[in-house]
Amino acid sequence: MAFHPAAQLTRWLDQLGRISDDGAHLTRTFLSPAMYRANACVGEWMREAGLDVREDGTGNLIGRVEATTTARRPQTLLLGSHLDTVRNAGRFDGALGVLLPIAALRDLRRRGIALPFAVEVLGFSEEEGVRFASAYLGSKGYTGQLRFRDLALRDADGVSIREALTRHDGGRFALPRPAHRPGELLGYVEVHIEQGPVLEVENLAVGVVSEIAGQTRGRFTFRGKAGHAGTTPMTLRRDALAGAAELILAIEQLAQNQPPLVATVGTISVLPGAPNVIPAEAVLSLDLRHPRDAERIAALQQVRATATVIAQRRGLTCDWLVTQDNGAVACSLELRDLLDASVQAVQRRSVSLVSGAGHDAVVLAALSPVAMLFVRCREGLSHHPDEYAAPADIAVALQVMIAFLERLASRERPVAGAAPIQRAKTH
Amino acid sequence: MAFHPAAQLTRWLDQLGRISDDGAHLTRTFLSPAMYRANACVGEWMREAGLDVREDGTGNLIGRVEATTTARRPQTLLLGSHLDTVRNAGRFDGALGVLLPIAALRDLRRRGIALPFAVEVLGFSEEEGVRFASAYLGSKGYTGQLRFRDLALRDADGVSIREALTRHDGGRFALPRPAHRPGELLGYVEVHIEQGPVLEVENLAVGVVSEIAGQTRGRFTFRGKAGHAGTTPMTLRRDALAGAAELILAIEQLAQNQPPLVATVGTISVLPGAPNVIPAEAVLSLDLRHPRDAERIAALQQVRATATVIAQRRGLTCDWLVTQDNGAVACSLELRDLLDASVQAVQRRSVSLVSGAGHDAVVLAALSPVAMLFVRCREGLSHHPDEYAAPADIAVALQVMIAFLERLASRERPVAGAAPIQRAKTH
Repeated sequence: MAFHPAAQLTRWLDQLGRISDDGAHLTRTFLSPAMYRANACVGEWMREAGLDVREDGTGNLIGRVEATTTARRPQTLLLGSHLDTVRNAGRFDGALGVLLPIAALRDLRRRGIALPFAVEVLGFSEEEGVRFASAYLGSKGYTGQLRFRDLALRDADGVSIREALTRHDGGRFALPRPAHRPGELLGYVEVHIEQGPVLEVENLAVGVVSEIAGQTRGRFTFRGKAGHAGTTPMTLRRDALAGAAELILAIEQLAQNQPPLVATVGTISVLPGAPNVIPAEAVLSLDLRHPRDAERIAALQQVRATATVIAQRRGLTCDWLVTQDNGAVACSLELRDLLDASVQAVQRRSVSLVSGAGHDAVVLAALSPVAMLFVRCREGLSHHPDEYAAPADIAVALQVMIAFLERLASRERPVAGAAPIQRAKTH
Repeated sequence: MAFHPAAQLTRWLDQLGRISDDGAHLTRTFLSPAMYRANACVGEWMREAGLDVREDGTGNLIGRVEATTTARRPQTLLLGSHLDTVRNAGRFDGALGVLLPIAALRDLRRRGIALPFAVEVLGFSEEEGVRFASAYLGSKGYTGQLRFRDLALRDADGVSIREALTRHDGGRFALPRPAHRPGELLGYVEVHIEQGPVLEVENLAVGVVSEIAGQTRGRFTFRGKAGHAGTTPMTLRRDALAGAAELILAIEQLAQNQPPLVATVGTISVLPGAPNVIPAEAVLSLDLRHPRDAERIAALQQVRATATVIAQRRGLTCDWLVTQDNGAVACSLELRDLLDASVQAVQRRSVSLVSGAGHDAVVLAALSPVAMLFVRCREGLSHHPDEYAAPADIAVALQVMIAFLERLASRERPVAGAAPIQRAKTH
């Protein structure tokens, strides 16, 4: 089955993937030259799809098509993701969620289908936190969540966020205000590669996100006593690393027993760190995520209690330091139902996934109901040049988006029953 | 009970502990200016005790007293340890084993007791492996175990071992030959601080070493798959660090169940090493020691088999690389019996200890029966300025050495029964 708009979309992804600040790799950061070129290029595709295009004070690219109805003040549906990338990136993360809605709207327009709500396609200027040590600058600007205290961070050249925004705005600076009042918005829907292996295991092209997990990050420090590896009998040791090893396995088992909890120890270091010296200190990171905050908090309490028991039994001390703590974001049940129905119409079976990664949708949730559609990516790989989503899967996602827009259009029309879709004049 | 020779010995330890290449700390390395000053100083104390003093081609300080008997070609007893130190060292490690025999011989001489065997007190010039990345240079030189291939190593200034030896020997170089033929030697007895906690736990001043443990060092590398900490369900992970943690606990348990096996994981590192990335690789060191080689080798096989099982169950790979492998050295049963009897005479109870650390005795074992007497040191601490052995414990060790020499003298006299100790003229 040839699905022409999908072929267009994969060409766009290739083309956008070549717009980089770095000759050899794909790197596109906040308000960089490549970002402006990307905005110009994607803006042109938006115009071809019938959208009015502007760039806001945070560098976000915004393409808008108005509602056809004039019966009441129409609401706006937001569709999008981010146009910045990590260093040496793949070409799907972010870009897919910006370009796919443009292809969908272009297809609706080609078929003469108008929508009873406005649509804004959003290409956020910053999500990855590369240029400044701070993520979500684009969506925070769009939703009016940037604060003066956030703007002092400086990039590698010593330019602050505030200075970068001032340059972008032609020398003026004003703290960005929310682009919409909450009541104006039907929702925000973000299409994104999964960055995980679930859809591959399920052998499905797309899946609907139920929640974006809350996250706690921190580190445990075990302290024991250094000693000579040859002269200290096993019974007289207070080995900080052995305590840490016990906690690592306890953390793994806890998460295995409580899906969808995920818990990761990604770093560990020991002191003094010599092969013939018993470790006196071991520091390990913990990254704990769960779609329900209460369960994440309970799991953290369990881990901390286990760490205390391990430390006491081994004659160690153990400290815990939180470095990050974000609540979970639940996706809108209404939007999820519409997406589920659309997915079932295209690939028959729909699965519900938790997003373990953060996305612009987390920030948009402050202003709007949110939903996300995940697209299978090869081996769950992302943030890497080998990041890959198959054209066939992208085609499924595009069909789902088109079906979703048509279903939402049917629902939004104040007519009982299955109203025929309104055909608008091509303008 | 005032024991005058012990007071002299602790003064010597203090005095020698101030002879350093480094103003602030105690650091005395192979053929350094401080080493020559130490040899001169200790050589003078040897002369006062009636020893003939020389320095050999490897910089070892040798004080010799001949046997009083002329009935047959007398044998030689070697007593000693090393005079070099680690950087920022304590003042007991090595020095105690050189100075204590001098004090013992001085006491025998004061009391007019002569011995029917020759005694050499040895202050080895190098044991710690600080100046060159190679240990035991002094005892290897004394026993004729240095090889040309060992001499190419260079210090921080680019000076090779061969060049250092040539300078020491006034411009000539000859590969050192063994100082003795094996049949000439009664044994080598080394007094050393324990560098471990056993005597402290046993509440004993000294203990007799049964064996110097054999040692295997190497590293395990687990390889799995990196993944996003938020998007990879627990069931789909191949976490290299979790595998490493399991092995660390298995190693600990194995050693706990098989005393006197000691096993230490002193270093661990993970890649990529970010809090939000599942570790793809974990490398951990293993230091495995046992007084019996067969049990050490069997334990290593168990650890390796366990690592393989862990890796297979977790979908990881695991490699093992040996970096060091030394066989165990058994102490002479005859010398141990004499030491045990001497210890029992002084402190009533004698315990037998395994030396987990290597010592000059390991090298001397190629030429002679060996034995070691360990002295309690505070908290098992060594290689640190706070290294400490109490004067009372040093006094016990000195009494044991004197008793040992008198017992050995009794045994060596070709007279049945309890021959009275021969009193020689003071010369």
